Parts: sequence; structure tokens; C-alpha cells
Amino acid sequence: MDAPLRIAIAGLGTVGRGVVKTLTRHNDLIAQRSPRPIEIVAVSARDREADRGIDLSGLRWVEDARELALANDVDVVVELIGGAEGIAKDVVTSAIGAGKDVVTANKALLAVHGETLALAADSADVALRYEAAVAGGIPLIKGLREGLSGNAVTRITGILNGTCNYILTQMEDTGADFGDVLQDAQAKGYAEADPGVDIGGVDAAHKIAILAALAFGAPVPFDKVHVEGIEAIEADDIRFAAELGYRIKLLATAEWLGHGRIGTRVHPALVRQRSPLAEVGGVMNAALVEAEPVQRVLFEGPGAGEGPTASAVVADLIDLARGLRLPVYMPAGAERLERTSVPIEDHVGAFYVRLKVIDQPGVMARITQILSESEISIESILQRGRRPNGVVPVVMVTHEAKDAVMAQAIAQFAALEAVTDDPCLIRIENV
Amino acid sequence: MDAPLRIAIAGLGTVGRGVVKTLTRHNDLIAQRSPRPIEIVAVSARDREADRGIDLSGLRWVEDARELALANDVDVVVELIGGAEGIAKDVVTSAIGAGKDVVTANKALLAVHGETLALAADSADVALRYEAAVAGGIPLIKGLREGLSGNAVTRITGILNGTCNYILTQMEDTGADFGDVLQDAQAKGYAEADPGVDIGGVDAAHKIAILAALAFGAPVPFDKVHVEGIEAIEADDIRFAAELGYRIKLLATAEWLGHGRIGTRVHPALVRQRSPLAEVGGVMNAALVEAEPVQRVLFEGPGAGEGPTASAVVADLIDLARGLRLPVYMPAGAERLERTSVPIEDHVGAFYVRLKVIDQPGVMARITQILSESEISIESILQRGRRPNGVVPVVMVTHEAKDAVMAQAIAQFAALEAVTDDPCLIRIENV
Repeated sequence: MDAPLRIAIAGLGTVGRGVVKTLTRHNDLIAQRSPRPIEIVAVSARDREADRGIDLSGLRWVEDARELALANDVDVVVELIGGAEGIAKDVVTSAIGAGKDVVTANKALLAVHGETLALAADSADVALRYEAAVAGGIPLIKGLREGLSGNAVTRITGILNGTCNYILTQMEDTGADFGDVLQDAQAKGYAEADPGVDIGGVDAAHKIAILAALAFGAPVPFDKVHVEGIEAIEADDIRFAAELGYRIKLLATAEWLGHGRIGTRVHPALVRQRSPLAEVGGVMNAALVEAEPVQRVLFEGPGAGEGPTASAVVADLIDLARGLRLPVYMPAGAERLERTSVPIEDHVGAFYVRLKVIDQPGVMARITQILSESEISIESILQRGRRPNGVVPVVMVTHEAKDAVMAQAIAQFAALEAVTDDPCLIRIENV
Repeated sequence: MDAPLRIAIAGLGTVGRGVVKTLTRHNDLIAQRSPRPIEIVAVSARDREADRGIDLSGLRWVEDARELALANDVDVVVELIGGAEGIAKDVVTSAIGAGKDVVTANKALLAVHGETLALAADSADVALRYEAAVAGGIPLIKGLREGLSGNAVTRITGILNGTCNYILTQMEDTGADFGDVLQDAQAKGYAEADPGVDIGGVDAAHKIAILAALAFGAPVPFDKVHVEGIEAIEADDIRFAAELGYRIKLLATAEWLGHGRIGTRVHPALVRQRSPLAEVGGVMNAALVEAEPVQRVLFEGPGAGEGPTASAVVADLIDLARGLRLPVYMPAGAERLERTSVPIEDHVGAFYVRLKVIDQPGVMARITQILSESEISIESILQRGRRPNGVVPVVMVTHEAKDAVMAQAIAQFAALEAVTDDPCLIRIENV
């Protein structure tokens, strides 16, 4: 048996606890699969006295997680603190600087500082691994980086935020409104008390930025990822979508647009009910990878939680114990490829538009005229119920159009006197 | 740039052609991701003159594939001939003996001779890689061996034969009978002219034997895998299953039954319409892995074909070029774990039973009495249409019972004078 792989864990929240439990519970099994035992030598967390249901006796407790990065008896620093800045960033940066391998579940850190960290790690020849940062228990990073390494990826479409998927699935199952379902999700622990990062789409954007870097060979500046959340989706939209043969999902998309151009975007989208992504319900995550020559592969599983995330962290640790080492992204470090992020305005696709209008003569004529002047053609229109001079919803599905053109038409709709609320625009994703 | 990884390809059928095309077409991309160029130095196939649509000029042509295993300028032998015996086995055995790494897509060879080959490869410290042998383009071997390496697998349930899944999906979509759909599948190239290995379940059995070896740490003797095919499924069964809320799939299952006991079986099964496996249609393959702590992960994609299989072979080659080397199964070689295969007779589960009976008084009483005497309880009975003294189908769903007990009841049904045809028994899988 080779020398143990000595690890230090920074952060003992849900994920940290899960990692300690898994390494303990599956000690025998890991010994069969790993040429080196994996040994926790030190831990750090905010509150030493908290009851975590794990045995920390025999492990060195460190008050300041930054010390772990500098400890002489540590081979790998496992960063499970979270956040793009502050202690998490300090710990990872110092560990790389000290020549230690790093395993992290920190999607925000990688999405925002991935380029800098990857350059540092690659040039110091240390590993920076992040299977747990995207899609929890699904081995998606490994699937992309190694399992599909012979492929040219054309598109990755993911359901990467369990909170949003839970809320949308509940809205569909119960017919309830966004606000009520969000409260219910918070009560059940499926949504944070401060849910903005999830429902606003930023969490999914962090993850798709990481996947895009991996698939297309260059980190995407995070401010180039287009981000919309699910706050504006109404129960009516879910019903209308169903009637049209669709479901509404928060999709995170990274696509190859040819000649070094890539698009990365997070927004609610209508997907056909027969799409494999439409079937992904509740808190599950999934990613559909389209690539040449494999065609398409779907990965689906739990995107968060103690067990699934621990599974990903421990897999990274076993890989390190097995001596599997690869650059953070490929090609490595300084050989980075030239990539251009295409803005959302240039996206071309079909759209779902829902307006609330006063039911009076001439309104539909005005609406369709605006589309016609924009050269956007209509595939179908739904108008349910007549309420002379009352407010009724009007739903349209368009053929393909450019995002910027559609946005102009939406602004024109919003300016109409007969349109009473903000128009709702949802992209239709052919996936 | 490091020295090239020099490969020889034995077999230029669909998969071999795909590998040559992918290495050529994605040459630049592979150069970015692989620290060593991958260079084809020699090839071998049955017919030198065949038009394969690939450029073989500059490659050494070898008449006898066995020579590739002994060539001094070859680092990796890629065996794409197929078959558990004969040349394929010779090539792989000699290559290992000559200290060369091997990449193969040969599920039959691994299922039947995996134990011997793994011992030889592990002790010679050469790699024997087989991503393409199971589930085509889905990186399932990697997902299990590396992505879920920190998990104790409890069950793998796979749809691993595209021909069977295509036939069952078509029967469901068209209402046609097995024979007609098989002919149609043959005409379309989705079934072989000699389809026995596919529709009889042997192909799926090869694959589940490999997955079981990987997940549970010891190769399964192939004759311990229980194998049934889909030949006895009638259009009626698919309709009745739908009425009961199920779909019929050919499932390949490997399950951990505790204390070193494992079950491996291939047979048609009823799965709930909301099961993720129920949604896997046409020639797609899928595997649902249940494990602790990850819970469950689904992998879905094309299980065969030039592009998908080439994707898997090329990923194995890039892994070798990256220096990623692991034992064939784990633990390696001589440390093999003690495992017992539990026979199908001890399987416990619910059942779907379809009888064709003469519609006369007392028949139902006799049938239910047999079940009652066997202490098998009935969840539901469907009997459609009355045809006094004519033949009508009777369908029953049972609660959980032991396979051996159910088999006895079936034998008793078959012996009844009022039962006109062989009873049809299909296991219900709660997955």
C-alpha cells in the first residue's frame, strides 16, 4: 500500500459532513479501489461546537481555514466553504501557491475566477478539481473531459438548478403561483431563505460557464453569460405551454456557433413534452450533451444534497489517489484558445409571448401588425375566453427570429395602451 | 509534444471505420486535449479491397491481425473484430502477452473471458480498456469506475440492447406483432439478419456481466447470468401493460443482495410509465445506477453505431495518451473479492401473468385457487370481453413472490385443460 493521500477539509456544512461520512462509511470499499488510503488530517469550520453527527476526534481542528493551505502534512485541500470571494478564494489560491492539489465544490469561485485559478494551477502543476461544482452527484465534468474527449461538442443544455426545477415542477403539478410554491419550497428546504441566486438564474449561470470552459477550451468571462430567472413565470404560462405541447424549464445552454464563437445563456425555456429534458422533474439535474461523433448523451441525477455532492468530491479524491491528473481546462494554461462570446441579442430561435390585453376591437390587429412589421411570423395564437373590455391573456408562438428583433417587438407591445402588464417572453428551445 | 501513441486497428467494420474517421476529422481537437498525438500505424481487416470511405494510404496493411499484437512499432492494439473466441481472442491475448495496451469494443470476449484477461492484463501491467463494449457512446464504464468510485452500488438497471428496445418501442407505437416489427427492423438495419444474440437477450447479458464485474469487484461467471429474450412478448401484452400503467422493456439488472451475493439477470420487464427507463425509446440505451451516497444517476445515449462507438474507443485512446491507467476491474488481479451469484429462482418480485383460456365457468376459480395455494396474492386481474367457449386472455398482476414459487404456479396453469397456450410471465421491476 502506498503512502496515504492526506487531505484537509475546509468547511463542514452539508457537503463537508457528507465527505467525512462517506470516507468513513466506505473506507473498505475505497481501499479496494484506491492505491493510496485517503486520510483526513485536519478540518476547519466556523463553529467548533456545532453538532454535525460526525466524529472529528483525532482530526486537527484549525480555526482559520487559510492555515490548511500551508500545512506541511496536507497533500490536498478540499474547499467546501463556498463563495466567489473571501476565505474560499484565499484558501484555494494559497493552496495552489503552496503546491497542493485542490478539490472544490465552489461553482461561483470557478465561474468568476476560473481563468486565473486554472493558469495558476496548471503552471504550478497542481490539480484543481471541481466535479462537485456542477450537477452534484452526476459525473458530468468527468463525462465531458474524459468520457467524451474525442468529440466536438456542439451544445450542452442543462437543468442545473434543483430549486428552480422543483418550483417549476410544483407549479405544473399544482397549478399554484410562483410566490406560493417558492414559500412552500422554502418550508421544505428546497429553496434557501434568500433564494435570489437560485431563482434569478445566477447559480445555473455559474455552472454553465464552467461547462462551456471545459467543452470549448477557454473560460467564458462570467459577465458574458446571459442570465434570466424564473420569477416572471406565471401559472398561466405553464398551462398555456402544456396546451401547446411544451413544458417550461430553466435551461442553461452553452452552444458552439462556429468559428470560435460560443453562446452561453440561462433563461426559462419551453421544451417539447417529448424532450428528454422535459421529463426531468423535481430537484433533479440533467445535462444533454450534443457532440460529434457521439450524437447525444443525457446525464441525469441529483444536483445537490449531502450524499450526491459528497459522491463527487470523493470521486475527485480517489482520482488523485490513483494519480489521474489533467489540466483544469484543455488546452492547458497559456495555450488557451481564442473564443468569442456571442451576445444574447444575436441569438436566433422561436418564442412564446404572453400578453395581457384589454379585450377590445383592433387590439389583435395591432399586435399582429407589430410582428409583421418586424418580419416575425406567427406559428400559433391562443386566445381564451372573451371578456369585452376586461383583461384577457393572448399567447403567441413565433417562428424563428433574432432576439434583438423580438425584444423590439416586445417593447412595442408594452407601449400599447391596451396591453396592461409587462409582456412575458420565453424562448423555445429545440432540444 | 511527447512521443506519439502508436495504435494498430484490428477490424475495419462499422466501428473501425468510425475510429479512423474520428481520429482524422478531430485531429486538431485531440491534439489540444491529448499530451501525445494518436497515430495509426497499422490496420488489419478481412477484405483489403472493400470500399470503406476512409483513406488507408500510408498505413501498414496486415493480413493476419495477430501480427499487430507482435509489431514492435505498436503501443496499443485496438481490437474491433468481435466474438468471444477465434481471432479476436487471439489478438487480445497476444497483445497482453507482448506487453501492449489493448482497447476493445468486444463485450462477448470480456463477458466470457474477462476474468482470465483481467488477471493477465493486471499482472503484465498493461491496460485493457472497454468503454465501447457497453452502451456504445455513453461513458458508462468511466462513470462507474471513476465517476462513482466512492459509492457502494446497490443496483444497475440497464436498457442495453438497442435492437430489442427498438422492437418493443415499435410494437408499442404501432400495435404490430413481434414478427412483423422484427422484419421491419431488419429491413431498416436496426436488427441483424441473424438477430438471435440480440432478441434472445445474450448481447444485453454480456454487457450486464461486465457492469456487474466493475460495480461489485469480481467478474461474474457468464453462465450465472439469467437470460431471457423478448420473443414471447405479444402485442396484447404491451397493450395490457399500458392499461396497467407500465411499459415493457428488456432490462439487464445487476443487483447487490447483501453479504457478497449478487444477482444478474436479463429479461423483459414491466416498468412504471413514470420510470426514467420507461422514457428511453427506440435504439437508445440507458443505465440507471443506484448507489450510496449518490442515490441514483441515469446515463442515456446511443448504444451502437459508427459515431457513438467510435467516441468510446477514442476516449479510451486519449485516456491512455494522458497516462490514465487503472486495473481492469477493482480490486485488481489476485485480490479478487468473494462473490456468489444468486440464481433466478431466489429472485423476489411482482409478476405480470397473461394466460389464454377457454371462457367457461370455473376457470377463473381454478386459476385463482392455484395462486392462493402457492400463497401468491393478486393485485389485479384484467379480463376483457366475454366469448363463451371461445379463447380470451386473462391478465393478472401479483404482489411480491419468489421466482421459483411463481414458476410452479405457471407450470400448473399450463397443465390446465382450459389454458390453450403457453402462459406468459413477465417480471415487474420497481425502478
